[in-house]
Amino acid sequence: MQLTLFTDYALRVLLYVGRQRGRQCTMAEVAAYFRISAEHLRKVIHRMAREGWLETRRGRRGGIVLARDAERVRLGDVVRSMERDLAIVDCDALECVLAPRCSLKAALDRGGRAFIAALNEVTLADLVADRAMRRQFRRIDIRALAAGAD
Amino acid sequence: MQLTLFTDYALRVLLYVGRQRGRQCTMAEVAAYFRISAEHLRKVIHRMAREGWLETRRGRRGGIVLARDAERVRLGDVVRSMERDLAIVDCDALECVLAPRCSLKAALDRGGRAFIAALNEVTLADLVADRAMRRQFRRIDIRALAAGAD
Repeated sequence: MQLTLFTDYALRVLLYVGRQRGRQCTMAEVAAYFRISAEHLRKVIHRMAREGWLETRRGRRGGIVLARDAERVRLGDVVRSMERDLAIVDCDALECVLAPRCSLKAALDRGGRAFIAALNEVTLADLVADRAMRRQFRRIDIRALAAGAD
Repeated sequence: MQLTLFTDYALRVLLYVGRQRGRQCTMAEVAAYFRISAEHLRKVIHRMAREGWLETRRGRRGGIVLARDAERVRLGDVVRSMERDLAIVDCDALECVLAPRCSLKAALDRGGRAFIAALNEVTLADLVADRAMRRQFRRIDIRALAAGAD
């Protein structure tokens, strides 16, 4: 039971951008920090901007910032907006004979809603305020990594 | 956010076997009913037997029955035992720099536990007792499908 890599990257981007407390950062910086492909990241960030999580500014002084306060970024909402499909099983692709009236599907959907509800109890502000996380962030020399990506 | 096909099949097998109210059924019958590969199903059923969900009996009069009462088969426990990995994101495969102290991972794990807890409120007995589901089961002519598989 895993989120897509797409959503995984989106969450990492939010952690990174959220931690900057308003400082604008660049896509190259985020890609270097997490050592992920800039090409893949571009698509993720584009979609995050469309979904209202990030604001992307163009041009030489361009970059990325949060589109709303970190307190207003609830984890469950982010996951729901980034996952293409929240169906826990794919009843159609396998043409399940029970699909039209399946009691299992309803139970799994309830489980999915419980998952999202639990995530919605956490905001991006909570995540970046976490002490251990802040220490971990400091441990990585951001500038060195960013320089390596140039 | 999807369960593996392996778990999906396991849940379908339970629905089918659970509905037989103690009548022993065969692997070919289940495969034909759901139109899924008998080879894949064999692995699923083998694992389900090992995990204590099914009892498989060998020989000419062999077959499959539930290893415990349907009231004692909780959906969350089944999912947890069949999914190879309950990690919502794969921090290791991508070598995330935050992995050692990531507040996101803890939040996602809480979400995963909420998912399992919600599923555990439902038993196999609930699922097969569902009226719409029972009607749907009746709609499929089991014998015709089983005959087609021979």
